[in-house]
Amino acid sequence: MNQGPIPAADAINRLIQELSKLPGIGPKSAQRITYYLLRAPHEQTGLLSDTIREVKQKITLCSTCYNVTDVDPCPLCRSEQRDHSTVCVVEQPQDILAIEHTGIYHGLYHVLHGAISPTEGVGSGDVRIRELTDRLQDGTIQEVILATNTNLEGEQTALYLNHVISPTGVRVTRLAHGLPFGTELEYADDTTLTRAIEGRQKL
Amino acid sequence: MNQGPIPAADAINRLIQELSKLPGIGPKSAQRITYYLLRAPHEQTGLLSDTIREVKQKITLCSTCYNVTDVDPCPLCRSEQRDHSTVCVVEQPQDILAIEHTGIYHGLYHVLHGAISPTEGVGSGDVRIRELTDRLQDGTIQEVILATNTNLEGEQTALYLNHVISPTGVRVTRLAHGLPFGTELEYADDTTLTRAIEGRQKL
Repeated sequence: MNQGPIPAADAINRLIQELSKLPGIGPKSAQRITYYLLRAPHEQTGLLSDTIREVKQKITLCSTCYNVTDVDPCPLCRSEQRDHSTVCVVEQPQDILAIEHTGIYHGLYHVLHGAISPTEGVGSGDVRIRELTDRLQDGTIQEVILATNTNLEGEQTALYLNHVISPTGVRVTRLAHGLPFGTELEYADDTTLTRAIEGRQKL
Repeated sequence: MNQGPIPAADAINRLIQELSKLPGIGPKSAQRITYYLLRAPHEQTGLLSDTIREVKQKITLCSTCYNVTDVDPCPLCRSEQRDHSTVCVVEQPQDILAIEHTGIYHGLYHVLHGAISPTEGVGSGDVRIRELTDRLQDGTIQEVILATNTNLEGEQTALYLNHVISPTGVRVTRLAHGLPFGTELEYADDTTLTRAIEGRQKL
Protein backbone atom coordinates (compact mmCIF):
# COMPACT_ATOMS: atom_id res chain seq x y z
CA MET A 1 0.00 0.00 0.00
CA ASN A 2 1.26 3.42 -0.96
CA GLN A 3 1.91 5.45 2.19
CA GLY A 4 2.64 8.68 0.30
CA PRO A 5 0.10 11.39 -0.39
CA ILE A 6 -2.66 10.57 -2.84
CA PRO A 7 -1.51 12.06 -6.17
CA ALA A 8 -4.49 14.33 -6.66
CA ALA A 9 -4.23 18.09 -6.98
CA ASP A 10 -3.95 19.99 -3.69
CA ALA A 11 -7.33 21.64 -4.03
CA ILE A 12 -8.96 18.24 -4.49
CA ASN A 13 -7.25 16.80 -1.43
CA ARG A 14 -8.25 19.82 0.63
CA LEU A 15 -11.89 19.49 -0.39
CA ILE A 16 -11.89 15.76 0.42
CA GLN A 17 -10.40 16.63 3.81
CA GLU A 18 -12.97 19.35 4.56
CA LEU A 19 -15.91 17.19 3.49
CA SER A 20 -14.63 14.31 5.67
CA LYS A 21 -15.17 16.51 8.73
CA LEU A 22 -18.95 16.57 8.16
CA PRO A 23 -21.13 14.17 10.16
CA GLY A 24 -21.84 10.87 8.39
CA ILE A 25 -19.28 11.57 5.64
CA GLY A 26 -16.32 9.16 5.58
CA PRO A 27 -13.20 9.54 3.39
CA LYS A 28 -14.74 7.48 0.56
CA SER A 29 -17.97 9.52 0.54
CA ALA A 30 -15.93 12.74 0.68
CA GLN A 31 -13.95 11.56 -2.34
CA ARG A 32 -17.11 10.64 -4.22
CA ILE A 33 -18.72 14.02 -3.49
CA THR A 34 -15.54 15.86 -4.50
CA TYR A 35 -15.37 14.19 -7.91
CA TYR A 36 -19.09 14.75 -8.31
CA LEU A 37 -18.57 18.48 -7.66
CA LEU A 38 -15.73 18.55 -10.21
CA ARG A 39 -18.20 17.39 -12.87
CA ALA A 40 -21.12 19.50 -11.63
CA PRO A 41 -22.10 22.80 -13.31
CA HIS A 42 -20.45 25.94 -11.91
CA GLU A 43 -23.90 27.31 -11.04
CA GLN A 44 -24.55 24.39 -8.70
CA THR A 45 -21.18 24.46 -6.94
CA GLY A 46 -21.28 28.26 -6.69
CA LEU A 47 -24.72 28.07 -5.09
CA LEU A 48 -23.54 25.43 -2.62
CA SER A 49 -20.47 27.48 -1.70
CA ASP A 50 -22.52 30.69 -1.33
CA THR A 51 -25.27 29.04 0.69
CA ILE A 52 -22.79 27.64 3.22
CA ARG A 53 -21.38 31.14 3.65
CA GLU A 54 -24.83 32.75 3.75
CA VAL A 55 -26.21 30.39 6.36
CA LYS A 56 -23.42 31.38 8.73
CA GLN A 57 -23.80 35.11 8.01
CA LYS A 58 -27.58 35.34 8.26
CA ILE A 59 -28.51 32.83 10.92
CA THR A 60 -28.56 33.82 14.58
CA LEU A 61 -30.44 32.55 17.62
CA CYS A 62 -33.90 33.84 18.49
CA SER A 63 -33.54 35.85 21.71
CA THR A 64 -36.77 34.30 23.02
CA CYS A 65 -36.70 30.59 22.14
CA TYR A 66 -33.06 30.21 20.96
CA ASN A 67 -34.08 28.48 17.74
CA VAL A 68 -31.89 29.29 14.71
CA THR A 69 -33.45 32.14 12.73
CA ASP A 70 -32.76 34.96 10.29
CA VAL A 71 -35.11 37.37 12.08
CA ASP A 72 -35.40 38.06 15.81
CA PRO A 73 -37.81 37.13 17.34
CA CYS A 74 -38.16 34.08 15.08
CA PRO A 75 -41.30 33.49 12.97
CA LEU A 76 -42.59 30.91 15.46
CA CYS A 77 -42.29 33.25 18.45
CA ARG A 78 -43.92 36.17 16.61
CA SER A 79 -46.73 34.10 15.06
CA GLU A 80 -50.26 34.87 16.27
CA GLN A 81 -51.40 31.49 14.96
CA ARG A 82 -49.30 29.69 17.58
CA ASP A 83 -50.49 28.91 21.10
CA HIS A 84 -48.32 31.12 23.31
CA SER A 85 -49.40 29.35 26.50
CA THR A 86 -47.50 26.15 25.65
CA VAL A 87 -43.75 25.73 25.27
CA CYS A 88 -42.08 22.58 24.02
CA VAL A 89 -38.50 22.19 25.29
CA VAL A 90 -36.05 20.49 22.94
CA GLU A 91 -32.30 19.90 23.01
CA GLN A 92 -31.42 21.04 19.48
CA PRO A 93 -32.93 23.31 16.77
CA GLN A 94 -33.37 20.36 14.38
CA ASP A 95 -35.69 18.69 16.92
CA ILE A 96 -38.18 21.48 16.14
CA LEU A 97 -38.27 20.37 12.50
CA ALA A 98 -39.15 16.83 13.56
CA ILE A 99 -42.01 18.00 15.79
CA GLU A 100 -43.31 20.57 13.28
CA HIS A 101 -43.33 17.83 10.64
CA THR A 102 -45.99 15.91 12.58
CA GLY A 103 -48.30 18.94 12.26
CA ILE A 104 -49.91 18.12 15.63
CA TYR A 105 -48.22 20.74 17.79
CA HIS A 106 -49.13 24.42 17.62
CA GLY A 107 -47.37 25.95 20.64
CA LEU A 108 -43.98 27.59 20.98
CA TYR A 109 -40.54 26.08 21.58
CA HIS A 110 -37.48 26.48 23.73
CA VAL A 111 -34.11 25.16 22.56
CA LEU A 112 -31.71 24.16 25.35
CA HIS A 113 -28.74 23.64 23.01
CA GLY A 114 -27.68 20.52 24.82
CA ALA A 115 -28.64 18.33 27.75
CA ILE A 116 -27.35 18.04 31.29
CA SER A 117 -24.58 15.45 31.37
CA PRO A 118 -22.50 15.18 34.57
CA THR A 119 -20.21 12.61 32.91
CA GLU A 120 -19.36 15.10 30.16
CA GLY A 121 -19.23 18.03 32.56
CA VAL A 122 -22.37 19.73 31.19
CA GLY A 123 -24.26 21.27 34.09
CA SER A 124 -27.63 23.05 34.26
CA GLY A 125 -25.87 26.38 33.69
CA ASP A 126 -24.35 25.17 30.40
CA VAL A 127 -27.70 24.79 28.65
CA ARG A 128 -30.40 27.45 28.31
CA ILE A 129 -32.47 26.51 31.35
CA ARG A 130 -32.27 29.93 33.04
CA GLU A 131 -33.57 31.47 29.81
CA LEU A 132 -36.51 29.07 30.01
CA THR A 133 -37.40 29.84 33.63
CA ASP A 134 -37.15 33.57 32.77
CA ARG A 135 -39.82 33.02 30.09
CA LEU A 136 -42.17 31.58 32.73
CA GLN A 137 -42.09 34.77 34.86
CA ASP A 138 -44.95 36.71 33.25
CA GLY A 139 -47.53 33.91 33.62
CA THR A 140 -48.37 33.54 29.92
CA ILE A 141 -46.96 30.03 29.70
CA GLN A 142 -49.22 27.45 31.32
CA GLU A 143 -47.66 24.21 30.10
CA VAL A 144 -44.08 23.13 29.46
CA ILE A 145 -43.76 19.98 27.36
CA LEU A 146 -40.40 18.28 27.87
CA ALA A 147 -39.24 16.85 24.55
CA THR A 148 -35.62 16.09 25.36
CA ASN A 149 -34.13 12.90 23.92
CA THR A 150 -35.05 9.59 25.56
CA ASN A 151 -31.49 8.75 26.53
CA LEU A 152 -29.79 9.18 29.90
CA GLU A 153 -28.87 12.85 29.39
CA GLY A 154 -32.32 13.72 28.08
CA GLU A 155 -34.05 11.99 30.99
CA GLN A 156 -31.78 13.68 33.54
CA THR A 157 -32.50 17.04 31.94
CA ALA A 158 -36.27 16.39 31.99
CA LEU A 159 -36.17 15.41 35.67
CA TYR A 160 -34.16 18.50 36.52
CA LEU A 161 -36.52 20.77 34.59
CA ASN A 162 -39.54 19.23 36.31
CA HIS A 163 -37.84 19.80 39.66
CA VAL A 164 -37.25 23.47 38.84
CA ILE A 165 -40.53 24.32 37.06
CA SER A 166 -43.19 22.32 38.96
CA PRO A 167 -42.96 24.53 42.12
CA THR A 168 -43.93 27.58 40.00
CA GLY A 169 -47.35 26.02 39.30
CA VAL A 170 -46.76 25.65 35.57
CA ARG A 171 -47.95 22.26 34.26
CA VAL A 172 -44.97 20.12 33.21
CA THR A 173 -45.49 17.21 30.81
CA ARG A 174 -43.13 14.80 29.09
CA LEU A 175 -43.50 13.18 25.66
CA ALA A 176 -45.01 9.71 26.07
CA HIS A 177 -42.58 6.84 25.95
CA GLY A 178 -43.66 5.43 22.65
CA LEU A 179 -40.07 6.15 21.67
CA PRO A 180 -37.64 3.30 22.34
CA PHE A 181 -34.86 4.19 24.80
CA GLY A 182 -31.77 5.53 23.03
CA THR A 183 -33.59 7.13 20.09
CA GLU A 184 -32.45 10.54 18.98
CA LEU A 185 -35.49 12.73 18.50
CA GLU A 186 -34.25 14.10 15.22
CA TYR A 187 -34.64 10.67 13.59
CA ALA A 188 -38.01 9.57 15.02
CA ASP A 189 -40.71 8.75 12.46
CA ASP A 190 -43.86 10.89 12.34
CA THR A 191 -46.25 8.28 13.74
CA THR A 192 -44.11 7.47 16.76
CA LEU A 193 -43.58 11.15 17.40
CA THR A 194 -47.30 11.97 16.97
CA ARG A 195 -48.25 9.28 19.50
CA ALA A 196 -45.64 10.55 21.89
CA ILE A 197 -47.07 14.06 21.67
CA GLU A 198 -50.68 12.88 22.07
CA GLY A 199 -49.86 10.57 24.99
CA ARG A 200 -47.76 13.06 26.94
CA GLN A 201 -48.04 12.50 30.71
CA LYS A 202 -47.99 14.96 33.60
CA LEU A 203 -44.78 14.42 35.56
CA MET B 1 -48.52 15.38 8.78
CA ASN B 2 -47.84 19.04 8.11
CA GLN B 3 -47.82 19.67 4.35
CA GLY B 4 -46.64 23.26 4.69
CA PRO B 5 -43.04 24.39 4.42
CA ILE B 6 -40.73 23.34 7.23
CA PRO B 7 -40.54 26.41 9.50
CA ALA B 8 -36.78 26.86 9.27
CA ALA B 9 -35.14 30.03 7.99
CA ASP B 10 -34.84 30.30 4.19
CA ALA B 11 -31.05 30.06 4.19
CA ILE B 12 -31.25 26.83 6.18
CA ASN B 13 -33.79 25.29 3.81
CA ARG B 14 -31.69 26.30 0.80
CA LEU B 15 -28.58 24.69 2.26
CA ILE B 16 -30.48 21.49 3.04
CA GLN B 17 -31.72 21.51 -0.55
CA GLU B 18 -28.27 22.05 -2.06
CA LEU B 19 -26.66 19.36 0.13
CA SER B 20 -29.42 16.88 -0.82
CA LYS B 21 -28.22 17.05 -4.43
CA LEU B 22 -24.85 15.50 -3.51
CA PRO B 23 -24.36 11.77 -4.10
CA GLY B 24 -25.13 9.60 -1.07
CA ILE B 25 -26.72 12.52 0.85
CA GLY B 26 -30.46 12.12 1.54
CA PRO B 27 -32.71 14.82 3.03
CA LYS B 28 -32.06 13.64 6.62
CA SER B 29 -28.27 13.64 6.15
CA ALA B 30 -28.49 17.07 4.49
CA GLN B 31 -30.44 18.36 7.48
CA ARG B 32 -27.93 16.86 9.91
CA ILE B 33 -24.97 18.40 8.05
CA THR B 34 -26.72 21.79 7.86
CA TYR B 35 -27.29 21.96 11.61
CA TYR B 36 -23.73 20.74 12.16
CA LEU B 37 -22.46 23.62 10.00
CA LEU B 38 -24.59 26.10 11.96
CA ARG B 39 -22.72 25.06 15.13
CA ALA B 40 -19.30 24.77 13.47
CA PRO B 41 -16.66 27.53 13.76
CA HIS B 42 -16.71 30.20 11.03
CA GLU B 43 -13.15 29.20 10.06
CA GLN B 44 -14.29 25.68 9.20
CA THR B 45 -17.36 26.66 7.21
CA GLY B 46 -15.46 29.44 5.45
CA LEU B 47 -12.76 26.97 4.46
CA LEU B 48 -15.34 24.50 3.16
CA SER B 49 -17.09 27.20 1.14
CA ASP B 50 -13.80 28.54 -0.27
CA THR B 51 -12.45 25.09 -1.12
CA ILE B 52 -15.56 24.19 -3.12
CA ARG B 53 -15.12 27.40 -5.10
CA GLU B 54 -11.37 26.94 -5.46
CA VAL B 55 -11.61 23.37 -6.70
CA LYS B 56 -13.81 24.53 -9.58
CA GLN B 57 -11.59 27.50 -10.40
CA LYS B 58 -8.23 25.74 -10.29
CA ILE B 59 -8.93 22.26 -11.56
CA THR B 60 -8.78 21.51 -15.27
CA LEU B 61 -8.10 18.35 -17.26
CA CYS B 62 -4.53 17.33 -18.15
CA SER B 63 -4.19 17.71 -21.93
CA THR B 64 -2.29 14.41 -22.08
CA CYS B 65 -4.08 11.95 -19.78
CA TYR B 66 -7.31 13.89 -19.02
CA ASN B 67 -6.94 13.41 -15.28
CA VAL B 68 -8.12 16.32 -13.13
CA THR B 69 -5.18 18.60 -12.32
CA ASP B 70 -4.17 22.11 -11.31
CA VAL B 71 -1.11 22.11 -13.63
CA ASP B 72 -0.91 20.95 -17.26
CA PRO B 73 0.57 18.44 -17.94
CA CYS B 74 -0.39 16.85 -14.65
CA PRO B 75 2.25 15.76 -12.08
CA LEU B 76 1.87 12.11 -13.12
CA CYS B 77 2.45 12.82 -16.82
CA ARG B 78 5.47 15.05 -16.13
CA SER B 79 7.05 12.74 -13.53
CA GLU B 80 10.35 11.14 -14.51
CA GLN B 81 9.83 8.52 -11.80
CA ARG B 82 6.88 7.04 -13.71
CA ASP B 83 7.17 4.42 -16.42
CA HIS B 84 6.15 6.28 -19.60
CA SER B 85 5.90 3.06 -21.63
CA THR B 86 2.79 1.86 -19.79
CA VAL B 87 -0.65 3.51 -19.76
CA CYS B 88 -3.51 2.39 -17.57
CA VAL B 89 -6.93 3.29 -19.00
CA VAL B 90 -9.65 4.14 -16.48
CA GLU B 91 -13.19 5.46 -16.78
CA GLN B 92 -13.04 8.24 -14.16
CA PRO B 93 -10.36 10.36 -12.43
CA GLN B 94 -11.18 8.86 -9.02
CA ASP B 95 -10.22 5.40 -10.34
CA ILE B 96 -6.63 6.67 -10.46
CA LEU B 97 -6.73 7.26 -6.71
CA ALA B 98 -7.80 3.68 -6.11
CA ILE B 99 -4.97 2.28 -8.26
CA GLU B 100 -2.35 4.66 -6.85
CA HIS B 101 -3.41 3.65 -3.36
CA THR B 102 -2.24 0.06 -4.00
CA GLY B 103 1.29 1.41 -4.64
CA ILE B 104 1.94 -1.38 -7.16
CA TYR B 105 1.55 0.57 -10.40
CA HIS B 106 4.15 3.05 -11.64
CA GLY B 107 3.06 3.83 -15.18
CA LEU B 108 0.88 6.59 -16.61
CA TYR B 109 -2.89 6.85 -16.97
CA HIS B 110 -5.57 7.75 -19.46
CA VAL B 111 -9.00 8.84 -18.29
CA LEU B 112 -11.85 8.06 -20.71
CA HIS B 113 -14.45 10.08 -18.74
CA GLY B 114 -17.07 7.43 -19.25
CA ALA B 115 -17.59 4.07 -20.90
CA ILE B 116 -19.21 3.01 -24.15
CA SER B 117 -22.89 2.31 -23.53
CA PRO B 118 -25.13 1.79 -26.58
CA THR B 119 -28.21 1.60 -24.32
CA GLU B 120 -27.46 5.07 -22.94
CA GLY B 121 -26.37 6.40 -26.31
CA VAL B 122 -22.69 6.76 -25.37
CA GLY B 123 -20.57 5.83 -28.39
CA SER B 124 -16.81 5.51 -28.84
CA GLY B 125 -16.68 9.17 -29.90
CA ASP B 126 -18.25 10.34 -26.61
CA VAL B 127 -15.35 9.15 -24.45
CA ARG B 128 -11.67 10.04 -24.88
CA ILE B 129 -10.64 7.05 -27.01
CA ARG B 130 -9.33 9.08 -29.95
CA GLU B 131 -7.12 10.99 -27.49
CA LEU B 132 -5.76 7.62 -26.31
CA THR B 133 -4.96 6.30 -29.79
CA ASP B 134 -3.27 9.65 -30.56
CA ARG B 135 -0.97 9.04 -27.58
CA LEU B 136 0.10 5.71 -29.08
CA GLN B 137 1.38 7.32 -32.32
CA ASP B 138 4.98 8.12 -31.29
CA GLY B 139 5.82 4.55 -30.18
CA THR B 140 6.71 5.39 -26.56
CA ILE B 141 3.80 3.45 -25.12
CA GLN B 142 4.32 -0.31 -25.25
CA GLU B 143 1.52 -1.55 -23.02
CA VAL B 144 -2.05 -0.38 -22.45
CA ILE B 145 -3.66 -1.80 -19.31
CA LEU B 146 -7.45 -1.69 -19.51
CA ALA B 147 -8.84 -0.87 -16.06
CA THR B 148 -12.42 -0.04 -16.94
CA ASN B 149 -15.13 -1.18 -14.53
CA THR B 150 -16.09 -4.87 -14.57
CA ASN B 151 -19.69 -4.20 -15.56
CA LEU B 152 -21.28 -4.43 -18.99
CA GLU B 153 -20.24 -0.95 -20.14
CA GLY B 154 -16.69 -1.40 -18.86
CA GLU B 155 -16.32 -4.78 -20.58
CA GLN B 156 -17.72 -3.43 -23.85
CA THR B 157 -15.31 -0.52 -23.68
CA ALA B 158 -12.36 -2.86 -22.99
CA LEU B 159 -13.28 -5.09 -25.93
CA TYR B 160 -13.60 -2.09 -28.23
CA LEU B 161 -10.25 -0.65 -27.09
CA ASN B 162 -8.55 -4.04 -27.64
CA HIS B 163 -10.09 -4.15 -31.11
CA VAL B 164 -8.73 -0.69 -31.94
CA ILE B 165 -5.29 -0.89 -30.26
CA SER B 166 -4.16 -4.49 -30.83
CA PRO B 167 -3.57 -3.99 -34.61
CA THR B 168 -1.03 -1.23 -33.80
CA GLY B 169 1.24 -3.80 -32.13
CA VAL B 170 0.91 -2.25 -28.66
CA ARG B 171 0.41 -4.91 -25.97
CA VAL B 172 -3.12 -4.70 -24.52
CA THR B 173 -3.87 -6.18 -21.09
CA ARG B 174 -6.90 -6.21 -18.84
CA LEU B 175 -7.04 -6.23 -15.02
CA ALA B 176 -7.45 -9.81 -13.79
CA HIS B 177 -10.95 -10.81 -12.78
CA GLY B 178 -10.34 -11.00 -9.11
CA LEU B 179 -13.03 -8.33 -8.99
CA PRO B 180 -16.60 -9.64 -8.76
CA PHE B 181 -18.80 -8.65 -11.70
CA GLY B 182 -20.65 -5.39 -11.06
CA THR B 183 -18.00 -3.82 -8.81
CA GLU B 184 -17.23 -0.18 -9.31
CA LEU B 185 -13.48 0.24 -9.39
CA GLU B 186 -13.59 3.25 -7.11
CA TYR B 187 -14.74 1.06 -4.21
CA ALA B 188 -12.50 -1.98 -4.64
CA ASP B 189 -10.29 -2.85 -1.66
CA ASP B 190 -6.50 -2.65 -2.02
CA THR B 191 -5.83 -6.41 -1.93
CA THR B 192 -8.37 -7.25 -4.60
CA LEU B 193 -7.12 -4.41 -6.73
CA THR B 194 -3.44 -5.40 -6.22
CA ARG B 195 -4.17 -9.00 -7.30
CA ALA B 196 -6.08 -7.77 -10.29
CA ILE B 197 -3.10 -5.62 -11.36
CA GLU B 198 -0.59 -8.45 -10.80
CA GLY B 199 -2.72 -11.05 -12.61
CA ARG B 200 -3.54 -8.91 -15.65
CA GLN B 201 -3.93 -11.02 -18.80
CA LYS B 202 -3.03 -10.28 -22.41
CA LEU B 203 -6.26 -9.94 -24.38
